[in-house]
Amino acid sequence: MSDDPRFGLRRSVTLPGPLRLDGGVLFSPVDIAYETYGTLNADASNAILVCHALTGDQHLASEHPVTGKPGWWARMVGPGKPIDTNRWFVICSNVLGSCLGSSGPATINPVTGQPWGMQFPVITIRDMVRAQAMLLDHFGIDRLFAVVGGSMGGMQALSWAATFPERVRAAVVIASAARHSAQNIAFHEVGRQAIMADPKWRGGAYYAAQDPPAAGLAVARMAAHITYLSEAGLTAKFGRKLQGREAKTFGFDADFQVESYLRHQGLAFVDRFDANSYLYITRALDYFDLAEEHGGLLANAFRASKARFCVVSFDTDWLYPTAESRTIAHALNAAGAPASFVELSSPFGHDAFLLESPELDRVIGGFLAAGERP
Amino acid sequence: MSDDPRFGLRRSVTLPGPLRLDGGVLFSPVDIAYETYGTLNADASNAILVCHALTGDQHLASEHPVTGKPGWWARMVGPGKPIDTNRWFVICSNVLGSCLGSSGPATINPVTGQPWGMQFPVITIRDMVRAQAMLLDHFGIDRLFAVVGGSMGGMQALSWAATFPERVRAAVVIASAARHSAQNIAFHEVGRQAIMADPKWRGGAYYAAQDPPAAGLAVARMAAHITYLSEAGLTAKFGRKLQGREAKTFGFDADFQVESYLRHQGLAFVDRFDANSYLYITRALDYFDLAEEHGGLLANAFRASKARFCVVSFDTDWLYPTAESRTIAHALNAAGAPASFVELSSPFGHDAFLLESPELDRVIGGFLAAGERP
Repeated sequence: MSDDPRFGLRRSVTLPGPLRLDGGVLFSPVDIAYETYGTLNADASNAILVCHALTGDQHLASEHPVTGKPGWWARMVGPGKPIDTNRWFVICSNVLGSCLGSSGPATINPVTGQPWGMQFPVITIRDMVRAQAMLLDHFGIDRLFAVVGGSMGGMQALSWAATFPERVRAAVVIASAARHSAQNIAFHEVGRQAIMADPKWRGGAYYAAQDPPAAGLAVARMAAHITYLSEAGLTAKFGRKLQGREAKTFGFDADFQVESYLRHQGLAFVDRFDANSYLYITRALDYFDLAEEHGGLLANAFRASKARFCVVSFDTDWLYPTAESRTIAHALNAAGAPASFVELSSPFGHDAFLLESPELDRVIGGFLAAGERP
Repeated sequence: MSDDPRFGLRRSVTLPGPLRLDGGVLFSPVDIAYETYGTLNADASNAILVCHALTGDQHLASEHPVTGKPGWWARMVGPGKPIDTNRWFVICSNVLGSCLGSSGPATINPVTGQPWGMQFPVITIRDMVRAQAMLLDHFGIDRLFAVVGGSMGGMQALSWAATFPERVRAAVVIASAARHSAQNIAFHEVGRQAIMADPKWRGGAYYAAQDPPAAGLAVARMAAHITYLSEAGLTAKFGRKLQGREAKTFGFDADFQVESYLRHQGLAFVDRFDANSYLYITRALDYFDLAEEHGGLLANAFRASKARFCVVSFDTDWLYPTAESRTIAHALNAAGAPASFVELSSPFGHDAFLLESPELDRVIGGFLAAGERP
């Protein structure tokens, strides 16, 4: 393990729990893998929790140990960057149910000594947040300077403000939604059915055979990946360009660049992600409905909150379109919570929050810095 | 076979060919299954060809022999209906490559005596149209009163006007496009990969085992089905409503109605469609680019045309959005072709053209009737 702050500190902790899950299970112990960047100050008042998306991980601003790629938000987080590690202590933990070191279906069930597989309890976004709160307790952090997240990370940020209103001073919710729509659920169901239709899935008990349902998971990823991109972005990037040839082959190879790209996305994904984790996390997303957790009225979720909110959407995001962010902003207004809402323009669809976006940098940097003013 | 005109006439014909395909193959013989409604007049001037969509069939206005359901456009075609079988002789034939009686991967390769499987030649939309032209020759129909189609049927209508400009007096193109976009290709590639990932696909040679790749085909259908519906339509129909229960199960059964609906769509589809045909027809769609066939300029496709055109889109169709129809209308204008273009409002997305739509009825009925005026 390197202590070099450029690479973060690759760490994990086993917390005794128990963690009471929304499904009723008392889960323990709870493994949480995390990375931190920067230094926690003496009164533990400068912590920012960054929450990752569906297939994201804790390697926020440091090299991913499997892919060797830079951290997924290295652009945003680091010394002098919008989430400035010279000023703030930044934490990112792998969500409960995932497969990068935190407890999930691929980890060992202590009762059986075998991987959990589908015996792992179904979890919710709020359960992920509760596990993160346990990690903050472990760090002695009572209150977050901010919680920040895009996509599923934004749902966690919302859930943080709703579940632990005293522990959040500011929340940044990017390209997200307060509930999964029927179309969102439908796309996830396609992915789950693709995994479960793969005979290698074996009801989730594929770990011993070391032959995971890669084909099904790749199809699931391909379907989801389309929803992360805009139609215009796909057209600009690929259009109908052929893949390394002059003419169509009149066959079923990847004639078009977009086919080749999607196949690559599917194949690359199976090297870094567990199929069962994909089932569990998509389920958590589909179950997410913050209003439902608060008597059916979204504003109720924020009435006890002490946080300032920053809500950001992208105009070409059709997975969690601007209308979803507007719904959040309206509910925050109704609850009397200080909230700013901005729709940014980008050709890149949902994925825009992960890509170069000087406007997003300015919005986040400015919003966070404003929290330091007395 | 019933001669009762309420049920159409279930027929097929084997034409000697050869049919020269875009891929270079000389294909023969050519089986074409078709239905007709109404009576061909003495000078064979009252024929309307209706072209079906990807998974459609020739059972346009008569009961489907497998599902027992009414014809897919019984609403539109019949005595006194917008496509009035009292006035016109209406033909609908199963496209080349499909699996409802026309030559396709599930039919017998006369050379081997076995089903073609993946030895069937890759075909194009224009090849489908050429096969239909052979059927018209068989009927002694030199010129169509009109060619009408929605979705892939609209592409055939466009291809008819471009390929046989002397043989088309009018073309109705509904919820369609002059080329497949990168996003269209991407969704189809997900479907193809889902089928090919199913071990039961066996490289397309699954007919003898009578155990087709149903799971892969169902996933393909589920992914495609989402693109046929609008986000707003899904929300209105299903929202986050649970399936026959009060609370979430915290499991992986179909908790949400939209999951159950999609699973049903997948399962019902495999009973009536061949997985290899799905590969071939999606390939034909992805290959479709009418401009590319005419020197890169769409207007060129229509310069020799003698037809009037009616182009219709639906505002919530995100598979073939209004912009695609507008592109067609602009090209028709540039080519000096008489063309009307209308965007209709519907909550139902791409599928709107198959559903109750009095506006569509009026547009089609009015446009066709105008062709009878001297």
